Amino acid sequence: MPQDLLILDVRPAGGQSADVLIRDGQIAAVGTIGAADGAAVLDGGGALLLPGLVEAHTHLDKTLWGMGWHKHSAGPRLIDKIENERRIRRETGIDPDRQSARQVAQSLRMGTTHIRSHVDVDTEVGLAGIEGVMAMRERLKAVIDVQIVAFPQSGLLIRPGTLELLDRAMALGAEVVGGLDPCAIDRDPKGHLDAIFGLAEKHGRPLDIHLHEPGEMGAFSLELIIERTRAHGMQGKVTVSHGFCLGMPDVDQARRLIADLARERIAVMTTGPASRPAPPVKQCVEAGIVVCGGSDGIRDSWNPYGNGDMLERAMLIGLRNNFRLDEEIELALDVCSHGGATVMGLDSYGLAVGCAADLLLVPGDTPAEAVVARPADRTVIKRGKVVVRNGELTEPVA
Amino acid sequence: MPQDLLILDVRPAGGQSADVLIRDGQIAAVGTIGAADGAAVLDGGGALLLPGLVEAHTHLDKTLWGMGWHKHSAGPRLIDKIENERRIRRETGIDPDRQSARQVAQSLRMGTTHIRSHVDVDTEVGLAGIEGVMAMRERLKAVIDVQIVAFPQSGLLIRPGTLELLDRAMALGAEVVGGLDPCAIDRDPKGHLDAIFGLAEKHGRPLDIHLHEPGEMGAFSLELIIERTRAHGMQGKVTVSHGFCLGMPDVDQARRLIADLARERIAVMTTGPASRPAPPVKQCVEAGIVVCGGSDGIRDSWNPYGNGDMLERAMLIGLRNNFRLDEEIELALDVCSHGGATVMGLDSYGLAVGCAADLLLVPGDTPAEAVVARPADRTVIKRGKVVVRNGELTEPVA
Ligand SMILES: [Zn+2]
Ligand SMILES: [Zn+2]
Repeated sequence: MPQDLLILDVRPAGGQSADVLIRDGQIAAVGTIGAADGAAVLDGGGALLLPGLVEAHTHLDKTLWGMGWHKHSAGPRLIDKIENERRIRRETGIDPDRQSARQVAQSLRMGTTHIRSHVDVDTEVGLAGIEGVMAMRERLKAVIDVQIVAFPQSGLLIRPGTLELLDRAMALGAEVVGGLDPCAIDRDPKGHLDAIFGLAEKHGRPLDIHLHEPGEMGAFSLELIIERTRAHGMQGKVTVSHGFCLGMPDVDQARRLIADLARERIAVMTTGPASRPAPPVKQCVEAGIVVCGGSDGIRDSWNPYGNGDMLERAMLIGLRNNFRLDEEIELALDVCSHGGATVMGLDSYGLAVGCAADLLLVPGDTPAEAVVARPADRTVIKRGKVVVRNGELTEPVA
Repeated sequence: MPQDLLILDVRPAGGQSADVLIRDGQIAAVGTIGAADGAAVLDGGGALLLPGLVEAHTHLDKTLWGMGWHKHSAGPRLIDKIENERRIRRETGIDPDRQSARQVAQSLRMGTTHIRSHVDVDTEVGLAGIEGVMAMRERLKAVIDVQIVAFPQSGLLIRPGTLELLDRAMALGAEVVGGLDPCAIDRDPKGHLDAIFGLAEKHGRPLDIHLHEPGEMGAFSLELIIERTRAHGMQGKVTVSHGFCLGMPDVDQARRLIADLARERIAVMTTGPASRPAPPVKQCVEAGIVVCGGSDGIRDSWNPYGNGDMLERAMLIGLRNNFRLDEEIELALDVCSHGGATVMGLDSYGLAVGCAADLLLVPGDTPAEAVVARPADRTVIKRGKVVVRNGELTEPVA
């Protein structure tokens, strides 16, 4: 039985100061408590108390974090980047177990307590990425929750054998079936989508589909996804990642797509991309769509940027959506916390009594200030245990 | 005579390790030096050595930095924000001297050694902002260079008396004449631009014009600015800040404008705005335009965001422009250093012998990594003196 933890003087979601008692990894009481027999005590010093942040889209298996600076040189097309990545994977020998642990350690320091990670499955790497991330997840299960999406990064139908590998990945323990640009990469949207919806149905698992396709092409793929979500009764079980087409110039068409996504309860993941059309977050949320936030790749062969900080991600989503009002900035934070929790299907997420004690303490007057200032001085609690104190891990994570 | 400073083991611009001797506030030697009689010694520990960063566009007089979190509630239109600001200024009693010092302290900690600040001049505040920032500048002249733009934030012709105040601001010591959206705010582009070009000519000073106007309206204003730059022989003396219209959908028209700006040597300032069309930085630089970077307002009534970190600004400019290659990320850093130095007319800026010893030491393998990682552990040298060590000011700045 873990020791109880009494957190003194924190402000849940920026409200009045309160104490929080944690017992058996859950929030047992919130209010004026002052002392609790046998509990360890953590002085919150008036910090904000937020639920642990949720990284709803990243690629743990291929970060180069901690491997020295990687000079970026890939060509501009998507296919250039996919091929460049496979080359780098061969040359540098990225170890998915070691690398995913490094990113988890960094994300934890930033206050992330839950991660959905796409993990590459292809005919070259096979299931090595899945196995590596699963090994890391087992080793680090005390400090992080990781959900794995089996992801056909190099294409599904254009690489025969990949679908069978995805099937095996699901049998092995991946929780979510992934998909990728059914027109632009696989050149067969019907074939691609029928295959992944079929696989999801077979395993009784959700879907998370990378959809970078812009404009009308993306809108077409999205319509096919919406049709299949309805036909398969997968409402509430499908996420579209990126969905750049929702930021298309034809705002009437985008509005219709948003309404259809909401009706089929299809979630949307955004990184707040500054150089791409992007889903209008406020409009999506107001339409009833669950929107979650992600870093996407962090310091990998695709993306030189990223630090796993979901407060910074909320800022970037805020900047992308021209969020200036406090309530708007707090919406961006909501996307990077509650939105991700809903997409991951977490059933005891939040600050209420009974919720899992996965928490972030961070200085700041309001949640909006925490997003804007992104203080390094964070304390993170996972399953009721202090895993990060003042920005540093209390025990090594690797 | 200040003491000499010998910096051991730094890598100028990410190159080979070298020592740097600083004498009389200038770089006196770079190479293998090892020891120098009577010099203080700073061990660089293999850090990157960069020229001090240049904040080429901010609003020192109205930051709310250090005044507690300000809840944002202004309406969406430009005029809402201008009126909201004037109300907040009245209600909170922002002291431009104190507030500009606070922002300078923060910028210094981040490695900024030169700042161009627009300072409001209007019929309500009069010259109080100019006087306040000038008082700060005099007091802090040992640690920061500040260039002042007399800025008609509330409009020029629509507020009779403002032009005369701008004239007095220039006589008082502002170095640059400011302008603002000649169509959208002043409703009289010819009148506005004739007035500010005339004032610049009278004082023999450069111009820096806020141009938020989008699309065709902005392109029209830009054409008028280009015509006047040529007619007044002001080539190399005009900066257009924001220039959102350069990111207009009609890329052919944008390309013509970019060519015209280059021909008249008109500089462009960008913040890398994620939610607005923006000047395509690489295309502008390749056309020969000097591009500089700025934070714009930091934590003021307009903008809740900002921390004065020009490495982060380079990252945001990189994200906005989809810069992924190392050379592209280093271009974004160049915008936030050399580009700003050119716009500010600094004649001894850089890392060469003879340059002013305004320097930033930051951990990192390459300049691109410094932009991506933005380490807090920075050491800053101004006029040959260490003013920030490991992220903390060596002496209070206020
Ligand atoms: Zn992804
Ligand atoms: Zn401005």
